Amino acid sequence: MNEYLSPLEWRDDALQLLDQRLLPVEEKWVACRTYEETARAIRDMVVRGAPAIGCTAAYGVALGIRQGAPLDQVCAALAATRPTAVNLFWALERMKQVRAAGFDDYLKEAHRILAEDIAACVAIGDHGAPLLPDGVVLTHCNAGALATGGYGTALGVIRSAVKKGRNLRVFADETRPFLQGARLTAWELHKSGIDVTLITDNMAAHLMQRGEIQSVVVGADRIARNGDTANKIGTYGVALAAQAHGIPFFVAAPLSTIDLRTPSGKEIPIEERDRREVTHVGDRALAPDGIGVRNPAFDVTPHALIAAIVTETGVAREPYVESLAKLFDAKP
Amino acid sequence: MNEYLSPLEWRDDALQLLDQRLLPVEEKWVACRTYEETARAIRDMVVRGAPAIGCTAAYGVALGIRQGAPLDQVCAALAATRPTAVNLFWALERMKQVRAAGFDDYLKEAHRILAEDIAACVAIGDHGAPLLPDGVVLTHCNAGALATGGYGTALGVIRSAVKKGRNLRVFADETRPFLQGARLTAWELHKSGIDVTLITDNMAAHLMQRGEIQSVVVGADRIARNGDTANKIGTYGVALAAQAHGIPFFVAAPLSTIDLRTPSGKEIPIEERDRREVTHVGDRALAPDGIGVRNPAFDVTPHALIAAIVTETGVAREPYVESLAKLFDAKP
Repeated sequence: MNEYLSPLEWRDDALQLLDQRLLPVEEKWVACRTYEETARAIRDMVVRGAPAIGCTAAYGVALGIRQGAPLDQVCAALAATRPTAVNLFWALERMKQVRAAGFDDYLKEAHRILAEDIAACVAIGDHGAPLLPDGVVLTHCNAGALATGGYGTALGVIRSAVKKGRNLRVFADETRPFLQGARLTAWELHKSGIDVTLITDNMAAHLMQRGEIQSVVVGADRIARNGDTANKIGTYGVALAAQAHGIPFFVAAPLSTIDLRTPSGKEIPIEERDRREVTHVGDRALAPDGIGVRNPAFDVTPHALIAAIVTETGVAREPYVESLAKLFDAKP
Repeated sequence: MNEYLSPLEWRDDALQLLDQRLLPVEEKWVACRTYEETARAIRDMVVRGAPAIGCTAAYGVALGIRQGAPLDQVCAALAATRPTAVNLFWALERMKQVRAAGFDDYLKEAHRILAEDIAACVAIGDHGAPLLPDGVVLTHCNAGALATGGYGTALGVIRSAVKKGRNLRVFADETRPFLQGARLTAWELHKSGIDVTLITDNMAAHLMQRGEIQSVVVGADRIARNGDTANKIGTYGVALAAQAHGIPFFVAAPLSTIDLRTPSGKEIPIEERDRREVTHVGDRALAPDGIGVRNPAFDVTPHALIAAIVTETGVAREPYVESLAKLFDAKP
């Protein structure tokens, strides 16, 4: 337990996940007692957001050990859930390195990963807060408490800025097709008393043109060595619009999202999800049968469009090949 | 009646409108027997699309005359429905100029406006078709048969190109919040046997980056004298992304959409619609209560981003101040 809103916690000998598919209508927790249940919850997006997926996977490994399943098999099943977010693979690597005899050691390491993630978010928030100009900050998708162990990355920056008394309002892109902005970001910020206005994704450029947006901050699912950033589909379009209007575009993410082994965005695999996410909202069909549908879940924003990348050890700017590597040296 | 799919027709002494709010799930026609019913149908978006609104308003005037209502009162009520599309005002002006004694003369003029609109669309299609490179053409919102008297403007260009045997596929932006792309464009093209793939609005930039889109064609709700073009919200973002990738961005519209009395996009009023269109799909809430919501229905694409404007009398390019005026001289 911690003082922050968190989408996952260990309770009653199980991993409890806040079912983010039901928000904002319903707040229901789902218990995972096996690694298979945990893998399914990640794949079906009960939990989402790169850092939260990493934390969840760590608990999934502990659950697998408790079942007596081989570590490699557990990790392989969890790794196969979603391809883009690198925190998943990072967390599995850390769990593999636990020198342990039993379940308790693995559970402790999962607790540690969760606690570190929350601490990293608070540090990200505090490093990033001074970057945001007063006025309206736009965010895309949900890089908030719900996407992390707690507090959030992009929303952590906003939380820290608001805490320091800054005059900020938030525009939240609804983020089709999964509507993380409408369902999660709006819910989370409103719950925290932060002034939030919902827009559809295609309104951002218009509002920038009208001078109604002063900055953009988003999270990340994977950051390549050169700073190219994979994040929720639509992020790249926002970055292009921000550039056209001279509006600074910031990325906020923990070091575990930075993958120095991926040279550039070209090498980041982009998950393509089910067509039904696009054609339906719940049971309601939005489109006719028989048509083609595309559903890439992420896009890549080239580093040249990113004014700064904010992590728990500091702020990186161009050239990212140097500045990102340095942030790892600063890690305690 | 005409050979093309049309969203409005005169039948049983009434204006019949295809209820576009129910598509693609249901094909239901609504009868308007008074100008008040016609005004409500425009405001509530039973019918939408600038040219279709113009045709509908013309029939609305005829209905008002049949009721014995004063012409000025009828026109004022119809003019108050939607502020951005200029075809509405253009059609009302034309109806005011009918030199007539009775209902039949007004009805004939409405029939003439409808027939001319369809003919204009076919001409737009034939002028525009050679502009589209083979491959994928992206369109936003619905500038199709359903948005006009029939055939369509942007989709007219695509229809003509396909008819000429060109190798074209269409990506259709779903176009939040009203989903004209998912519900109408996908339905209309699929019905016409044209290969259509639905995407969410925020995927376009990503697909351009991947080289999967070769051109863009959209309609318009009002084109200013300098070529600045008001169209469905999201159009401007698409134009910025197209520019960033060197992809030609075309606007297709009848001369009745060009408003030479509006000097630039700055003077075009942008309608802000109800928040519920953003927060709900049908009865289903997508967002929590209590948050702010914005819902501008249109945006303005600056003329510099537009490779060409296609009308029924020809194709205009920069400088639009000269080329657009010339297109009116070419009118028979």
